[in-house]
Amino acid sequence: MTTSNSKKWFCEGSVPGERSGNMNICFGIKKKIFEGKTRFQSALIFDNAVYGRVFVLDGIVELSEKDEFVYHEMMVHPVMLSHKKPENVLVIGGGDGGVLREILRHPVKKVDLVEMDKKVVELSKKYLPFLKAKTSFSDRRVSVFFEDGADFIKKTKEKYDVVIIDCTNPEPKSNSFPLYSEKFYKDIFKSLNKDGIIITLGASFLDFEKISKPFSLRMNKVFPFASFLRFTMPSYHCGEYSFLMGSKETNLEKPNFKDIERRFKSLKKKYSFKYYSPEIHRASLLLPEIWKI
Amino acid sequence: MTTSNSKKWFCEGSVPGERSGNMNICFGIKKKIFEGKTRFQSALIFDNAVYGRVFVLDGIVELSEKDEFVYHEMMVHPVMLSHKKPENVLVIGGGDGGVLREILRHPVKKVDLVEMDKKVVELSKKYLPFLKAKTSFSDRRVSVFFEDGADFIKKTKEKYDVVIIDCTNPEPKSNSFPLYSEKFYKDIFKSLNKDGIIITLGASFLDFEKISKPFSLRMNKVFPFASFLRFTMPSYHCGEYSFLMGSKETNLEKPNFKDIERRFKSLKKKYSFKYYSPEIHRASLLLPEIWKI
Repeated sequence: MTTSNSKKWFCEGSVPGERSGNMNICFGIKKKIFEGKTRFQSALIFDNAVYGRVFVLDGIVELSEKDEFVYHEMMVHPVMLSHKKPENVLVIGGGDGGVLREILRHPVKKVDLVEMDKKVVELSKKYLPFLKAKTSFSDRRVSVFFEDGADFIKKTKEKYDVVIIDCTNPEPKSNSFPLYSEKFYKDIFKSLNKDGIIITLGASFLDFEKISKPFSLRMNKVFPFASFLRFTMPSYHCGEYSFLMGSKETNLEKPNFKDIERRFKSLKKKYSFKYYSPEIHRASLLLPEIWKI
Repeated sequence: MTTSNSKKWFCEGSVPGERSGNMNICFGIKKKIFEGKTRFQSALIFDNAVYGRVFVLDGIVELSEKDEFVYHEMMVHPVMLSHKKPENVLVIGGGDGGVLREILRHPVKKVDLVEMDKKVVELSKKYLPFLKAKTSFSDRRVSVFFEDGADFIKKTKEKYDVVIIDCTNPEPKSNSFPLYSEKFYKDIFKSLNKDGIIITLGASFLDFEKISKPFSLRMNKVFPFASFLRFTMPSYHCGEYSFLMGSKETNLEKPNFKDIERRFKSLKKKYSFKYYSPEIHRASLLLPEIWKI
């Protein structure tokens, strides 16, 4: 990972298209904020004229100030509201605090967050104030574990209502790769209460047959119910993105929307939501014919 | 417009980010198929390993083989089915034939297509066979006019049920710029029957306040009803895209879905649809709170 072409541009991969070999995105750098290495990965933070502050790990855009709310609201509220009373939540990854900011809007009792890379939390606190990491990580309900997520889940005795996997892409040599395995899903299954729900990354539908569909089939090997949430992420490679949910007993395509609407109404009295609403929740569950499994 | 960085890459604009000054996309060129100038614009056609054949005009991606069906199905079926009996249709632009391919699935009586650039039709017939331009342009219901769309609409005496504007982006010096003006919408209004519907480009919601919202407000100055359709287009800059519909008397957010479902069912007996379905139609109409007007 480096900025490429000239010092004024960041492209995913060091030359355009290196990432996928086929298509790539480049951002103009208005101001470079941080560039360095953590123990596990390289990090870059810069300001872009349209996207605001952009956070890059190992050469891949993790989030931008302009559209991070889409990702974080969609990763948290559909699963939290599909579960009838989520009190005990586990986050694997998510060291930037964005997911935590959204979880803490709900009346949870306990949130465990397992982040391998301590430096991500530090960078977020210092340079990404809109993610509210400072406030969230000091919330008394939150415990942070700086260790490998796959190891944590193997040994924990805790039972969770909701597990959120907010990690990097499944690049074969990356630390996140084991977090997409059937073995890992089985370990999560064991750590979930019987009405528990998991959510993780589902990729773009561009290469549905090769990427998203196998993800979903693998999830469905372990969890009786598996569903996608589909949405747009302008700052991501090809702009389209999805999450994949799995559950033991809740049909996530048909959650109790009456209950969801009631609880959302009450949340809205205290917090403002930019992207999520029950109707967007419904819309994100609907897939075009060719992407149905 | 040229391929940039090396001969193996095409980036929108001649250097990454030139287009928007802020963010850009680049495609690997597996094989260059055509590069040249028409009377009005530059054209490039190449093959990409993921997107298949890609068609570029004046340095901006117009369509790719991989995801053109999203664009063309969404540009045609929601408006054709929201209108109770569209028989007389006008297309302004659309010389590649993609929109025409979808329109001709409906029981229309007459389609006028006004394309300024004859060469676009020729290139499509020769190099973009999946758009079916050869078949569609020789359909007896279709009349083609090679002239300026804004001029055509000023002088036509014809009355249409549906008008589809399938043009390039509103770059200030481009031929398409007048097709986004209030004056143009007023001319379309006059050429539409009283239950007539127009659809045109609505841009990405990334800069909603600066771009899509003013589009919508301008449409609403002329048409009592204006609604967005929102969807993902992986091959487009930032991957998110929308169309903007306007109508004289149909609430396009609440069309007669019973009728739409009945007619779609009958269409599906003859044709296969990859993206459009009445449920995707509903989903595309739903907007997140912050993008409501």
